[in-house]
Amino acid sequence: MTSPSATQDSYPYQNEPIWSRSEKVIARKAFDAALGRELHEVIQEAQKMASQIQQSSDLWDLEYYLTQRRKEIDRKYDYRYSQLTYVFGRLLYEKRLREEELRGLGEDKLKPIRSLAKFLAEDAA
Amino acid sequence: MTSPSATQDSYPYQNEPIWSRSEKVIARKAFDAALGRELHEVIQEAQKMASQIQQSSDLWDLEYYLTQRRKEIDRKYDYRYSQLTYVFGRLLYEKRLREEELRGLGEDKLKPIRSLAKFLAEDAA
Repeated sequence: MTSPSATQDSYPYQNEPIWSRSEKVIARKAFDAALGRELHEVIQEAQKMASQIQQSSDLWDLEYYLTQRRKEIDRKYDYRYSQLTYVFGRLLYEKRLREEELRGLGEDKLKPIRSLAKFLAEDAA
Repeated sequence: MTSPSATQDSYPYQNEPIWSRSEKVIARKAFDAALGRELHEVIQEAQKMASQIQQSSDLWDLEYYLTQRRKEIDRKYDYRYSQLTYVFGRLLYEKRLREEELRGLGEDKLKPIRSLAKFLAEDAA
């Protein structure tokens, strides 16, 4: 009933790895752990900045810091399976995630994750 | 050389009160004092909110609070002589300014300032 091109349109991401149920559990846990650590870091920094406010410019610096971090975190923590290898690769490069936390993922995920982390490290060097 | 309408265009605010040098000194002092008190209030509230952060939503509530207050303060504290009677009227109504702080301004300024404060109070009642 459907032409080959229509089938292709329905599965635009057919070359992406399939995440098994157990891999999804591991991914969610690693993702939430990294996000939790990053949020904890922002909370600590915001509290430190707040405690040191002397004048109005310090107040608006705090607002600017929070806005920037919120936008950055929103962009970075994208839990779509189509984005996860990129997200984890970046978190690994940023040392916000340890490779042990990804143990149990298939090599089809770990390989691109490690590649991206390596690429980002080389790019920054 | 200029037509009456051109003259009118050059002095669009000719019906506004003229602020004398001594009135400008009083106005600046009252304005800065009210702004300083309001900023002090925001700093204290921000520090309280920051110290009570438990989770990420509290963090973004702090950001939202700061953004709203910054915008509100930017709009409210408009030090243009064409706006000052309105600014002081509002500050008087909000009890951010005491009438004594305006002592020395001419009746041509005090009258619209008091009128606006009274109007806002009646409007809110």
